Amino acid sequence: MKDNNNMKKPDIYRVALDERSYDIHLQSASLHQLGAAMRDLFPHAERCMVISNDVVAPLYLNVVKESLEASLWQVFEYIVEDGEYFKTVDTWSKIMDALMDARLSRNEPIVALGGGVVGDMSGFAAACYRRGIPFVQVPTTLLAQVDSSVGGKTAVSHPHGKNMIGAFYQPRLVWIDPDVLQTLEAKQLRAGLAEVIKYGAIWDGDFFHAIERDAQALLALDDTLVKQAILACCRYKAEIVMQDETEQGARALLNLGHTFGHAIEAMTHYTVYLHGEGVAIGMCMAARLSEQLDYALKGTEKSMVKALQALDLPVTPPEFTASAWLDAMGHDKKNVGSRIRYVLLKKIGEAFMAEDVKNQDIEVLIESYI
Amino acid sequence: MKDNNNMKKPDIYRVALDERSYDIHLQSASLHQLGAAMRDLFPHAERCMVISNDVVAPLYLNVVKESLEASLWQVFEYIVEDGEYFKTVDTWSKIMDALMDARLSRNEPIVALGGGVVGDMSGFAAACYRRGIPFVQVPTTLLAQVDSSVGGKTAVSHPHGKNMIGAFYQPRLVWIDPDVLQTLEAKQLRAGLAEVIKYGAIWDGDFFHAIERDAQALLALDDTLVKQAILACCRYKAEIVMQDETEQGARALLNLGHTFGHAIEAMTHYTVYLHGEGVAIGMCMAARLSEQLDYALKGTEKSMVKALQALDLPVTPPEFTASAWLDAMGHDKKNVGSRIRYVLLKKIGEAFMAEDVKNQDIEVLIESYI
Repeated sequence: MKDNNNMKKPDIYRVALDERSYDIHLQSASLHQLGAAMRDLFPHAERCMVISNDVVAPLYLNVVKESLEASLWQVFEYIVEDGEYFKTVDTWSKIMDALMDARLSRNEPIVALGGGVVGDMSGFAAACYRRGIPFVQVPTTLLAQVDSSVGGKTAVSHPHGKNMIGAFYQPRLVWIDPDVLQTLEAKQLRAGLAEVIKYGAIWDGDFFHAIERDAQALLALDDTLVKQAILACCRYKAEIVMQDETEQGARALLNLGHTFGHAIEAMTHYTVYLHGEGVAIGMCMAARLSEQLDYALKGTEKSMVKALQALDLPVTPPEFTASAWLDAMGHDKKNVGSRIRYVLLKKIGEAFMAEDVKNQDIEVLIESYI
Repeated sequence: MKDNNNMKKPDIYRVALDERSYDIHLQSASLHQLGAAMRDLFPHAERCMVISNDVVAPLYLNVVKESLEASLWQVFEYIVEDGEYFKTVDTWSKIMDALMDARLSRNEPIVALGGGVVGDMSGFAAACYRRGIPFVQVPTTLLAQVDSSVGGKTAVSHPHGKNMIGAFYQPRLVWIDPDVLQTLEAKQLRAGLAEVIKYGAIWDGDFFHAIERDAQALLALDDTLVKQAILACCRYKAEIVMQDETEQGARALLNLGHTFGHAIEAMTHYTVYLHGEGVAIGMCMAARLSEQLDYALKGTEKSMVKALQALDLPVTPPEFTASAWLDAMGHDKKNVGSRIRYVLLKKIGEAFMAEDVKNQDIEVLIESYI
């Protein structure tokens, strides 16, 4: 009984960014309290628009709407199709139409109820409608709870590159209820754990190995472990965002595995791999490249592969020619000038930005997988 | 000879906004120096994209390209169709495609060569491509030189409302060569003068009457007077932007005439009135409404109409029903909650925000014109 009460106490973590500061609110069984929290945050707003997708809405839209209406919100809703494939200018444009139809005012918020796609796209809509209205993240996937809902990276994808069109635009509140993970597909849960273990790979070898050790319990959604993992990740993310909000430097380390991962997603037209799966494969490739270039300790790739396999994640890239890889990565937004920057590893727990990777090195890497 | 030299000395005015600060550079016959200035500002960038329209490009794209190439820029170009009608999500999306095709990097700038439409749309493209790349305003209309190129309001329009989709995103440089006005259509010149006299109507009765007095010389493009007017307007604009970058308060006064003006543009599908013409009519309506509600001194409307007629600008609204007006204005982005906020006048030279205008007041105003 005592434990149960503790589980229900909120953990609140403040992302301090001057006038763009906000709370991450983490609490089990808190979804029905969202309306009251938003009423406190926006005392003068009358209306809001909940944006969700056709997988999440049947599960959680009603409880969110009832919570909002109980706090005297007039609720509009807009439902998009689920998946990265629909994270496009076209879908975003339809969201803008819905906002125009609802005539939302400058002080009236958007609520993003869903995973990373819904959060990124809703945030970009909030950034652009009337040159910016408030938005609230209510992440319903593990990946969104541990990573994409925090930090204000919003975007849609372009056929030539993932997340190439977007804005840095912070939410006004991140509302995390880990209980919603109970309904998450196993594949989605694993994809989220790829981003969890990523924080360990970049900064904290102990955390990396703890996640690997607890893999089965995490996959079985052990309450305490899941909540601890979410909180740890939100802290890592918030800390780095506070240091480097617009990714001029250190924040770029969070892209470990993403240059390869985004290429994998783009080359397979956003229909084969979940984002977290692309990142898992991408981290294995980054680890192998780090060893190939003598940056990393021998065995780094092996540790990476072993941990991701314990989480039941894919570790081998799909087969494309080296030139297809380079082309897909050439459009990656982390480029500076005509070079591609890669996040590489010195060891598990220590990542760095490599500016000097040559196309030839990538060719050798790709060939090593064939 | 001495005068001529003075004419060619640059006036530089700094818009101080912390890390978003930039210079407004005003100088006759300076278009061919743009490349060198941009080379100084972006020493490590290799490529840029000039965005222009099919009226301006035949006149000035070559000189700009040659100037850039002389300073070792690799220049891409993208030409849009001229006019407010094309200031849409669709045109913006095509600009994004062109940026993707050019593979512009995060540190490589866009150059907006054109009037307000080109500047607003290019700025919004710069704000969104890779979550923000630098952009430079090279305004070629009087309206853009005195108003829209300074201050970082970027946008495209939606069928239901002007400039409803956009971002606050500051340029890195505003490069004004008043000599380009020599090729400007007379109608465009007059539209620009509507925004010039607007600054006087809001803050400075003496400036208002000076512009009225000098109307013929300004319409004849008297070098000294035109340059003085541009400089004065840039200073007014920069000052207010420095006080209130994102229009939380005082900056909204610059929307004098714009709530009515945007409605006029939208109701006529952006094909009949230039923006400045809509603003001219809108300022007359705002003046009449100010008298109707006993805010303004008697004769305020008459002064406004007289000055705008001296500039050969339209002063009478097109005929639409009051409900069509209210509907068109209901989508105006200056709303707070369900009320419409109007910028009204106490007298020529003193504007204020009125929060309490009722729909009925607007009905009376519209009927007074029939």
